[in-house]
Amino acid sequence: MEIQLLCIGKPDRSFWTEALEQYEKRLQHYVKFSLIYLADVKSSKKTNPLKIKTEEAKQLLQKIKPGDTVILLDEKGKAFNSVSFSKEIENHMISGKKRVLFIIGGAYGFSEELYQKFPQRMALSQMTFSHQMVRLFFCEQLYRAFTILNNHPYHNA
Amino acid sequence: MEIQLLCIGKPDRSFWTEALEQYEKRLQHYVKFSLIYLADVKSSKKTNPLKIKTEEAKQLLQKIKPGDTVILLDEKGKAFNSVSFSKEIENHMISGKKRVLFIIGGAYGFSEELYQKFPQRMALSQMTFSHQMVRLFFCEQLYRAFTILNNHPYHNA
Repeated sequence: MEIQLLCIGKPDRSFWTEALEQYEKRLQHYVKFSLIYLADVKSSKKTNPLKIKTEEAKQLLQKIKPGDTVILLDEKGKAFNSVSFSKEIENHMISGKKRVLFIIGGAYGFSEELYQKFPQRMALSQMTFSHQMVRLFFCEQLYRAFTILNNHPYHNA
Repeated sequence: MEIQLLCIGKPDRSFWTEALEQYEKRLQHYVKFSLIYLADVKSSKKTNPLKIKTEEAKQLLQKIKPGDTVILLDEKGKAFNSVSFSKEIENHMISGKKRVLFIIGGAYGFSEELYQKFPQRMALSQMTFSHQMVRLFFCEQLYRAFTILNNHPYHNA
């Protein structure tokens, strides 16, 4: 199984890049994982958020293949703890999924089109995080999930 | 009001240090905030976790002054969203608290003594995080809380 995390915009500080690379590297021991950064939609303060979301959705849809399992990371999604999230990952593997894509939306969230096309949503916390933070948060939990499934000790990073 | 985040052990990677310093600096615009790292308790794989927790508690208790408000960060604690957390911080300010200490426990959690002395617990997520990650998570939320209370735009970092 392959797992991808799709997000909008590159990390804006080197410490985010370093932290993310750390987990990306560790995850390779367990799964084919990649972090895909889509280009920021060019906008000014006056740009209608709806337009931005529509543009972002266009880009995201280009990355999705038929047969992909798509899960939107969304505050209103289903909440997991680390163990139930690892079981969720296991279930995807057992059911023979080829690719699972997790998507972090842009600053204004997802377009209606994406919500309708991909009803699976997952919440990492009730709290709101910066986009940069959510990526790290997710990668750490995915790494933790694989250590749980493989009964490996968790290495702090 | 002063806020401190107490935790056990220094950051183990430079990217954590850089990320934490970033938020610590930003928080100074709003509040007297400091991150206090207590020394790791020297231990081997054979050391009884109970002994480690007791030693950690001893160190933590030395940092707590009479009159401090103490909140333990604990998965089983009260869950907040970013807005309700900001209100919690506001309530501490309104009620004239001098110092509020948030504490992140060690690898084995808190000793019974600490749980009994300080019944206030707060959960950041249902998910389990590395100690390193929890620190960043908390600092980002505290920074977010102050941007909410001051009606300031949130600057990604």
